[in-house]
Amino acid sequence: MPKRILIVGAGKSTSYLLHYLLRKAPEKDLLLVIADKQPDQLPEEVTGHPHTEITKLDISDAPSRREAVRQSDIVISMLPASLHIEVARDCLEFGKNLVTASYISAEMRKLDPQVREKGLIFMNEIGLDPGIDHMSAMQVIDRIKADGGKILLFESFTGGLVSPQSDTNLWNYKFTWNPRNVVVAGQGGAAKFKQEGTYKYIPYHKLFRRTEFLEIEGYGTFEAYANRDSLSYREAYGLQDALTLYRGTMRRVGFSRAWNIFVQLGMTDDSYHIENSRGMSYRDFTNLFLPYSPTDSVELKLRHYLKIDQDDIIWGKLLEIHLFDRERLVQQDNATPAQILQEILEASWTLGPEDRDMIVMYHKFGYQVGERKYQLDSNMVVVGENRRLTAMAKTVGLPVAMATLLILEGKYRKAGVQIPRDPEIYEPVLEELAQNGIAFREYEVPYLGYNPDSVAS
Amino acid sequence: MPKRILIVGAGKSTSYLLHYLLRKAPEKDLLLVIADKQPDQLPEEVTGHPHTEITKLDISDAPSRREAVRQSDIVISMLPASLHIEVARDCLEFGKNLVTASYISAEMRKLDPQVREKGLIFMNEIGLDPGIDHMSAMQVIDRIKADGGKILLFESFTGGLVSPQSDTNLWNYKFTWNPRNVVVAGQGGAAKFKQEGTYKYIPYHKLFRRTEFLEIEGYGTFEAYANRDSLSYREAYGLQDALTLYRGTMRRVGFSRAWNIFVQLGMTDDSYHIENSRGMSYRDFTNLFLPYSPTDSVELKLRHYLKIDQDDIIWGKLLEIHLFDRERLVQQDNATPAQILQEILEASWTLGPEDRDMIVMYHKFGYQVGERKYQLDSNMVVVGENRRLTAMAKTVGLPVAMATLLILEGKYRKAGVQIPRDPEIYEPVLEELAQNGIAFREYEVPYLGYNPDSVAS
Repeated sequence: MPKRILIVGAGKSTSYLLHYLLRKAPEKDLLLVIADKQPDQLPEEVTGHPHTEITKLDISDAPSRREAVRQSDIVISMLPASLHIEVARDCLEFGKNLVTASYISAEMRKLDPQVREKGLIFMNEIGLDPGIDHMSAMQVIDRIKADGGKILLFESFTGGLVSPQSDTNLWNYKFTWNPRNVVVAGQGGAAKFKQEGTYKYIPYHKLFRRTEFLEIEGYGTFEAYANRDSLSYREAYGLQDALTLYRGTMRRVGFSRAWNIFVQLGMTDDSYHIENSRGMSYRDFTNLFLPYSPTDSVELKLRHYLKIDQDDIIWGKLLEIHLFDRERLVQQDNATPAQILQEILEASWTLGPEDRDMIVMYHKFGYQVGERKYQLDSNMVVVGENRRLTAMAKTVGLPVAMATLLILEGKYRKAGVQIPRDPEIYEPVLEELAQNGIAFREYEVPYLGYNPDSVAS
Repeated sequence: MPKRILIVGAGKSTSYLLHYLLRKAPEKDLLLVIADKQPDQLPEEVTGHPHTEITKLDISDAPSRREAVRQSDIVISMLPASLHIEVARDCLEFGKNLVTASYISAEMRKLDPQVREKGLIFMNEIGLDPGIDHMSAMQVIDRIKADGGKILLFESFTGGLVSPQSDTNLWNYKFTWNPRNVVVAGQGGAAKFKQEGTYKYIPYHKLFRRTEFLEIEGYGTFEAYANRDSLSYREAYGLQDALTLYRGTMRRVGFSRAWNIFVQLGMTDDSYHIENSRGMSYRDFTNLFLPYSPTDSVELKLRHYLKIDQDDIIWGKLLEIHLFDRERLVQQDNATPAQILQEILEASWTLGPEDRDMIVMYHKFGYQVGERKYQLDSNMVVVGENRRLTAMAKTVGLPVAMATLLILEGKYRKAGVQIPRDPEIYEPVLEELAQNGIAFREYEVPYLGYNPDSVAS
């Protein structure tokens, strides 16, 4: 009898996940049961593979979903984060282990006592971010602590970008993942972090002007803006004593300063709807956010309002996305500003057939041994192969697949609703990721305790 | 038998309301039943008056509250807006008319069919703003329409300020009403309005830089920032055809530009709490919102971050409220930035014993008769007598008191949950307000359709 791995949800992020498991399937006697709402969108090499079984499944169809879970040996949920909980409840009922790449929701966390009682493993946050970030950081933190070091500083940055050869627009950016998350990024509260023992708070409307710069050997300079909550990593990573805690999102230099134009205008607002948005020109959309004038152009009003100099390349970025175009029309009814902005950006920033994406991750660890202070930087770059075999799908899918096999084969046994924080899971996964080209390079640098590039910025 | 007017809630805003009704009491045979949580805070001239009856009432004590309503001939609720609904339900049950100065809540509106069925009057929004604004605007709008005019433009502005003789700080501002409302003003969504047929949206972080200027004869120049929703007045005032709809809040010139510093820093945020806020110096509070630097002062970091020139009077405004003080300490535990900012401002902006407040209101009506366009501006200024007999208490309390008597004496009879939009209520109230020094002056001005002072601002 082959071991049945139920994979619920098989969107485009699962290409590497499926390839990896199918490659292992003959040797390890696996059967991949792929349950998706639109299974006909799966490629031939998956659907035609002797070790797959394809099921059309609507996740809200409880009897079919429950039956699929009941028959499986382990379950991978690649559904949108909000849909994991039903699958998780089925797993609990039928005593199945579960793997997801999503943040643990409050509902999921509540299952922990029951999951432990049944000796089950619900492994979450084992994709890229969250996932590889946890594992690669904990590996270094544990090593420093084992060598008698005390962590003073932890900063961590991740970015989903385009590869250098596909970097063809003035923004140095294309959508490689969910565009909506990019448009509303940073909203919902001030960014909170800690620098040299001092708490710092950045409101949304200043977030994209408080960037730090980061250098990656062979790839040049990047910038990063702060994520909303860096402080929750204190407990998660055991960094209660750290003076500096900062998590950020990486972009190519200049992106954030230009993005700030949308923020300042109010174009990223997702909280109200614009009547009769369909058929509005991009130019009229832009004019909604500018003062009324019977005589001045939209262009000059915007330049003046946001103090954009004649020779500022930001202006080229706005022209490139056709923000002042009279002919291009919004296609959505009664849309929010954020939805309209997303439509405008998708028209310019969608990956072309030959485009490749790129994942970058950058950690900084400051620590003290005795009286001396040290800093270790580590970073990782992964470039995608094509529009389907993306670096994002690789870095999200492979850790999920690897963890699934470790759990299925009984090599990882710690029960509970959890994230990959223990050496028993991160050591084998990171080692195998490195064999697959997902590896960190480490650099010793002088300890400063802060980023001199961000002072008085 | 005297007529019993039940007044629920007798805070400091009721001084004029009580005086007015007590002055009328002997002639009209009224008994004022004043029900308050802390009736001992009422002044002697009220508690000792032969036409008053004072009751200690906790509004959550339903049996006592219901009994008080049952015995009354009409009810005035001067409670905080969220507490009216229980009183309103009692009024409905016992068939009593009700008067409040607050916006109609969704719950209150739901009572309308039952209120009409019983032939009752629940008159709301009959204070200053809302209240005098509705009545004074509707009077002019109805007059223009009766003369064959079509309304093209309606702008309306109100401000609660200090009188010129008490205008003693660099902000030209002191708290004359609920300070919390001032600190969080404008939050919760973009400001929406319409100018010459074009919809306009201003995000919160730009609100205080998109002010208009207004001139009031004898009082000089004021500025105004946009209120959150100007569009809802389309239906309320029957202005579906108006090309321009704008409501705003008035301040003395320069206030908003300086207030914007707090907004930009993130100090008005009320959505998160700062750990260990008690005992933090004002300076450390300010530094929470500035980049970390081991070498630069809080002052220079702030000047640089928000680009404040050496000779900008904004800087004096920040010094005046001790924003960089090392000795003054926050007194609240675990407070939000907005709560801490309020504490800092209350220390500087509280009315002194001799201070007087001032209410300003300014309407603009643009209209067309035949082919010709006209504009009528009207404004009102009311100055308070002292810290207890404030212009705010006068302009809120008198219309409530006047409407109460009109309803009690059967001179106003239209049933339903309503606001003062009909001539039958606004004519007698406005006439009597004018006799009490609350009057509008009207000016014919050229119609522009927009405010030239706000173009490209």
